Amino acid sequence: MQLGIVGLGRMGGNIARRLMLNGHTTVVYDRDETSRTALANEGSTPAHDLASLVAGLEKPRAVWVMLPAGAPTEDTINELAGLLDADDVIIDGGNTFYKDDVRRSVALKDKGLHYVDVGTSGGVWGLERGYCMMIGGETEVVTRLDPIFKTLAPGIGEIPRTKDRAKDADPRAEHGYIHAGPPGAGHFVKMIHNGIEYGMMQAFAEGFDILKTKNSDNLPADQRFDLNLGDIAEVWRRGSVVSSWLLDLTADALATDPQLNAYSGSVADSGEGRWTIEAAMEQAVPVPVLSTSLFARFRSRQQSTYGDKMLSAMRFGFGGHKEPK
Amino acid sequence: MQLGIVGLGRMGGNIARRLMLNGHTTVVYDRDETSRTALANEGSTPAHDLASLVAGLEKPRAVWVMLPAGAPTEDTINELAGLLDADDVIIDGGNTFYKDDVRRSVALKDKGLHYVDVGTSGGVWGLERGYCMMIGGETEVVTRLDPIFKTLAPGIGEIPRTKDRAKDADPRAEHGYIHAGPPGAGHFVKMIHNGIEYGMMQAFAEGFDILKTKNSDNLPADQRFDLNLGDIAEVWRRGSVVSSWLLDLTADALATDPQLNAYSGSVADSGEGRWTIEAAMEQAVPVPVLSTSLFARFRSRQQSTYGDKMLSAMRFGFGGHKEPK
Amino acid sequence: MQLGIVGLGRMGGNIARRLMLNGHTTVVYDRDETSRTALANEGSTPAHDLASLVAGLEKPRAVWVMLPAGAPTEDTINELAGLLDADDVIIDGGNTFYKDDVRRSVALKDKGLHYVDVGTSGGVWGLERGYCMMIGGETEVVTRLDPIFKTLAPGIGEIPRTKDRAKDADPRAEHGYIHAGPPGAGHFVKMIHNGIEYGMMQAFAEGFDILKTKNSDNLPADQRFDLNLGDIAEVWRRGSVVSSWLLDLTADALATDPQLNAYSGSVADSGEGRWTIEAAMEQAVPVPVLSTSLFARFRSRQQSTYGDKMLSAMRFGFGGHKEPK
Amino acid sequence: MQLGIVGLGRMGGNIARRLMLNGHTTVVYDRDETSRTALANEGSTPAHDLASLVAGLEKPRAVWVMLPAGAPTEDTINELAGLLDADDVIIDGGNTFYKDDVRRSVALKDKGLHYVDVGTSGGVWGLERGYCMMIGGETEVVTRLDPIFKTLAPGIGEIPRTKDRAKDADPRAEHGYIHAGPPGAGHFVKMIHNGIEYGMMQAFAEGFDILKTKNSDNLPADQRFDLNLGDIAEVWRRGSVVSSWLLDLTADALATDPQLNAYSGSVADSGEGRWTIEAAMEQAVPVPVLSTSLFARFRSRQQSTYGDKMLSAMRFGFGGHKEPK
Repeated sequence: MQLGIVGLGRMGGNIARRLMLNGHTTVVYDRDETSRTALANEGSTPAHDLASLVAGLEKPRAVWVMLPAGAPTEDTINELAGLLDADDVIIDGGNTFYKDDVRRSVALKDKGLHYVDVGTSGGVWGLERGYCMMIGGETEVVTRLDPIFKTLAPGIGEIPRTKDRAKDADPRAEHGYIHAGPPGAGHFVKMIHNGIEYGMMQAFAEGFDILKTKNSDNLPADQRFDLNLGDIAEVWRRGSVVSSWLLDLTADALATDPQLNAYSGSVADSGEGRWTIEAAMEQAVPVPVLSTSLFARFRSRQQSTYGDKMLSAMRFGFGGHKEPK
Repeated sequence: MQLGIVGLGRMGGNIARRLMLNGHTTVVYDRDETSRTALANEGSTPAHDLASLVAGLEKPRAVWVMLPAGAPTEDTINELAGLLDADDVIIDGGNTFYKDDVRRSVALKDKGLHYVDVGTSGGVWGLERGYCMMIGGETEVVTRLDPIFKTLAPGIGEIPRTKDRAKDADPRAEHGYIHAGPPGAGHFVKMIHNGIEYGMMQAFAEGFDILKTKNSDNLPADQRFDLNLGDIAEVWRRGSVVSSWLLDLTADALATDPQLNAYSGSVADSGEGRWTIEAAMEQAVPVPVLSTSLFARFRSRQQSTYGDKMLSAMRFGFGGHKEPK
Repeated sequence: MQLGIVGLGRMGGNIARRLMLNGHTTVVYDRDETSRTALANEGSTPAHDLASLVAGLEKPRAVWVMLPAGAPTEDTINELAGLLDADDVIIDGGNTFYKDDVRRSVALKDKGLHYVDVGTSGGVWGLERGYCMMIGGETEVVTRLDPIFKTLAPGIGEIPRTKDRAKDADPRAEHGYIHAGPPGAGHFVKMIHNGIEYGMMQAFAEGFDILKTKNSDNLPADQRFDLNLGDIAEVWRRGSVVSSWLLDLTADALATDPQLNAYSGSVADSGEGRWTIEAAMEQAVPVPVLSTSLFARFRSRQQSTYGDKMLSAMRFGFGGHKEPK
Repeated sequence: MQLGIVGLGRMGGNIARRLMLNGHTTVVYDRDETSRTALANEGSTPAHDLASLVAGLEKPRAVWVMLPAGAPTEDTINELAGLLDADDVIIDGGNTFYKDDVRRSVALKDKGLHYVDVGTSGGVWGLERGYCMMIGGETEVVTRLDPIFKTLAPGIGEIPRTKDRAKDADPRAEHGYIHAGPPGAGHFVKMIHNGIEYGMMQAFAEGFDILKTKNSDNLPADQRFDLNLGDIAEVWRRGSVVSSWLLDLTADALATDPQLNAYSGSVADSGEGRWTIEAAMEQAVPVPVLSTSLFARFRSRQQSTYGDKMLSAMRFGFGGHKEPK
């Protein structure tokens, strides 16, 4: 099958590669010429602008936009909307807020265009392992694109089958992609995935922090251990309840840098974590762990907060307490 | 009435003063001679050691120990126990863990001694405003000491009466002291008071942090306000739902130092906050806000945590993400 | 001064009354005729629709809209905008989201109208105690309305002055109202006030829950106390660090219903609590206590959550654990 | 090698079986005769009391106690201590608090006995998958027992090797067991494991709760999706960042019971979750997610809390608000 791809960064480039390795053809565009040339050398048809990309595709066309969420994606989709014809499909594979998907899909429908949103997890590993994809869009359109999704997905692999999964359950899930629902549903599910990810990461972070601190000179000698955090991560990978890919990555990191000296501990957050909390608030779902995990990241990026100073000021006010040195 | 007082720091000294101003007599001891002399000049009978303090009191004696919790208090009580006679009373007015009170009261009972624990709030303001006291001990003993407690308490003052409070309700509560229950109950109630205090303080801290940040240059100009935090604290003191002594103190602090530059934001915690969480866990009571408030203080005392570094390490592992600068 | 008031519920009606008691005149409208008549009997000029209300006011007019946030307020403001003339003022005294204020003020400015947002705290007590007000709007307009605000505010009262408050600080704050900034700033500050309120309330709730549970038959007899929660609330009102209006209200409630049997514990939340979290997320401010307090309310309204069932399902999966009865 | 085993429940019985399947011999005791007989039929030597179990073992003996933590384990160890000889080993494979391990190891050392604590994860799956073990004890003793541990452990299996793990790193970790440190260190590491487990589970629970609620009739139709939660769990198992054993179990549960109707959502907690918070407090480590996860379980076991009722009471007090129906 043929696919147009806009944005040839790590994600877009590897999507093109994985498709071509499996017999699909791609027409690609990136404003960076070097990226286009690189893909051209691997078999893609390069386009020097969006119009020529559209011109290079057969109808009904499908264009996968793989750009940073926000203005870059929005502007590109708007420009594509002016170039494409009825029944063509725009796919947003980025980290778009799902309400933007809903809005766009309505606007594009007026022009006879289709909109598909694809949330992907496991990005940098996708070329090798495949992309876990959560897809939103009209059923006919998602079905039309199935050859693309099937190729990009990890496939059933060697992962043990879920016991008792119904014979008539959608087989795509086991292959690593789902049609989650109408436009927006793909990014919605991906958003929640990231919210969960924040919580799991914070759980590991807090637990390892206790382990680390248990070795600390600040503790009286008779309360101190000399725990090997790398070995602990390693042993938990084998049969423990917390075994997970995040634990695998933790073991990787600890294997070479047990003090994690390579990191300052200033932790970014992307939109999905915040949007997850917003969704929870809209739906009145209590999510104290997901929110607290997000806020731990905010906190990590500050040396001290105004709020902390206010605590000190109040303590001084009612008790004359001075701050600890 | 006559009271022995051990420990003449800010709290112990002012307790002696407030008692003497109201016609009681005091025999006082502190290992620091200057403190003893100062109180002697204000009318106390100074003692040069615990034995002479005990010798200077009429039976049945009452000795108020006002020392840091832990070893200083424990050692003093042990020494006093060897000096006192049956039916004498030891009062611990410090910040002792309530289970230590229970343990001590049992041990002292074997010697015929009584034990009373007094949790106090409003420490540095006590000479002027009186001490809000929560008392644990045997009923007869607490009653025996009532003249002392009545004098130390703030009294009914000008605070509006609680509507519909039962005519036969214990009048002591309105005067600012209660007999909470058997030994340990006083410090238990005081402990919970401090747990609540942590939560209230953190609520103010987080709210004012949002207000402060709303003025920040980091926000786009059209989303920024120029809020006057001192005026906000001031206006909330008049009729708002959050009006409180903590807000009064906040207004005080902001009046002279709106940026709170005098504080680094490294916030201490005392035992009560931690013990509150322990009590909640023993009783299976969900206390996410009280615990989170405690942990915000732990966090405030660190520049970055090992846990934060681990988050960064995982993010690098699964997504190649670099830390924000 | 003359003020038009739309919405004569508890808040709107009492605003009219407090103004008239202090020499102002009011023209009032409510779709409920009984309310209009009641106010007319107390001295207001009733209007049978918005047009007649506008007709009854002298230019430049000022109309205070005191209706539920959302459609009722929005529709009324839109209709008023069509009836009013340049330089007239619309005041929204409800619980509007501050971004709606910003949007409206821009739209109304195009028509030459002014927009003022007033966040108020202490609602039901306002007739008696006055309204604590946080005001957003253009400086000239807020100044023009000062006689209204000054009358509605609680005034300086008998509340102790904040020590060291600058001589040249805005005197309005001490009288219980502030001009917080441009349109939206009033409701922004009020929103944060409510966020803090949630946190303080939850701190009290958790603390009293531990106290209550400490009396429980579920504890072994030798760990149990028999704490009098009403007396505890009462004593804390006198000199303790947690003294506050919320504690006063708690003491009121416990005085007549110590088991709080009148309540099921299903707790509503209004928009401000959620918007506070949104604002914090926009500004990257860590607010774990404010968010957790909100989520405790969400949780209170459910018997059990799907999430809890999932925990049970996982526990059964990895350990064969059955649920406790 | 020969091992005595006390306690033949699911864990103890399967430990005996896994050992015998791999050439070890076992002498077993359980106060339930049926369990003893069952194991005898599979090759164990049954003992009718602890004395005969000890008598049936060659010196230096090793006895694995696999009983519920607390009194059953404590009493058994005390009795064994009176029966065993110098240089014998007692192994506690249960869920003991690590400070109890430290205390016991000191007491047993006085008698010349050795104490080893083994925290295990993956209990019910252990016969098949092996037991992930964290071991505390003296180095010589843990080494002496290595044949036992090596057999019980999962082994290196097909789990991908951690990249860059040092050549000279302890090979036991990759086989699924570690010598964590002196007595107590095994259960300490296991305790933290469980703390992390709570946090990860709660992250999944909250995330799936949002997904579930997004399908709810309570939402306006145009905001509602029809998400298939079983498919979502399934697809995340393939290449997503949240892939984990807990997710596998979730997919299992959802495959047959997507509404989780089999569960009421009343969630138990074991000691480890609480002890993790205690350890964090001792070490001043902020663990808001681990604590909040524990408290969500406490909350799940109550229909409503006294604290929630207090929130309602305060809201009624300051705003006349009635509870939602």
